[in-house]
Amino acid sequence: MKVYLGTVSGNSYKLRILLSLLKAPHEVVIIDMPNKQHKSAEFMKINPRGEVPAIEDDGKVIWDSAACLVYLARKFGGEQWLPTDAAGMAEVMQWVALAATEIQCGLQYARRGVTQGRWTLGSLEDGQKFGRVALDICEARLANNDWLALGRPTIAEPACFPYIETAPEAKVALEPYPAIIKWMERCKKLPGWAAR
Amino acid sequence: MKVYLGTVSGNSYKLRILLSLLKAPHEVVIIDMPNKQHKSAEFMKINPRGEVPAIEDDGKVIWDSAACLVYLARKFGGEQWLPTDAAGMAEVMQWVALAATEIQCGLQYARRGVTQGRWTLGSLEDGQKFGRVALDICEARLANNDWLALGRPTIAEPACFPYIETAPEAKVALEPYPAIIKWMERCKKLPGWAAR
Repeated sequence: MKVYLGTVSGNSYKLRILLSLLKAPHEVVIIDMPNKQHKSAEFMKINPRGEVPAIEDDGKVIWDSAACLVYLARKFGGEQWLPTDAAGMAEVMQWVALAATEIQCGLQYARRGVTQGRWTLGSLEDGQKFGRVALDICEARLANNDWLALGRPTIAEPACFPYIETAPEAKVALEPYPAIIKWMERCKKLPGWAAR
Repeated sequence: MKVYLGTVSGNSYKLRILLSLLKAPHEVVIIDMPNKQHKSAEFMKINPRGEVPAIEDDGKVIWDSAACLVYLARKFGGEQWLPTDAAGMAEVMQWVALAATEIQCGLQYARRGVTQGRWTLGSLEDGQKFGRVALDICEARLANNDWLALGRPTIAEPACFPYIETAPEAKVALEPYPAIIKWMERCKKLPGWAAR
């Protein structure tokens, strides 16, 4: 299994976390993002979206970080990280969806604007406001629960963690979210959790 | 099973399509979006995100349109609409993810800006550009395939269809995407496909 990861990609970090938690055997292919290798014709044949991460396994390619988390969880994680019953799977996927909209398009795009000067969708203020919707929902959930879904660690954790952790780089302070800060500490203590 | 739908919501339309395809027994609760019922304290207890759709079933609430599609597919659709093997599920979920990012935050937010004057993330041009990334990927896929994933209809169809269909309202013409236009016609001919 080949895993295409970026040199500076929080979406790639999501996969590194889960690969490490699951001890999944894999070969890493690093894509040189500062030199735009992810937009090269060669890589676009692998992922037409021109983004990392992507997984190539058994002659099949999966792109999108959420889909890659699903792939790894189903292939290596049994029912633990993404169960297949309707209610369990849907509860996990609602947090994975939050990671793809408010967290990615809000917190991450605001951060990328600040750190790289690339503004994909709107201003810093737009991204901060959109991202805070996610932080409010996570804070409310984590005030009374150790984990985002199902009372245990699931792929919701690697999906949501990376761009919440870097929210301060989008000039969104995490101090108003004490339950999130404690949750991040719990995540980091999971056996096998990968460092950024 | 209660399904909370909006009066003017493409994300609610995604669920209407799948509920109809699956002939899933349910009770509809209409949320009055023009009067901001989705942001009311009462509804925010059901969905802290303040959005439709949401599903309440067996004392459990699922919010987020993608998570709701997952719930319905797993509860009523067997392996057909969302299979549980790693490769099959991940292939479906990559299109569901595209619906949550480029299609939702690009095409839909651009459309909402044009039609309602609400600009969540960036300008019309930002949204159009982001949305066209999704249209290009879908067009390339559908040029050689009848369906987005797995060679058969899956939840990728109801996930992606609604805000692709309304792309012209975001001033994104669909004529440059002939394979997408043919795919939309195929979708509409599926037995049970719901009209907008």
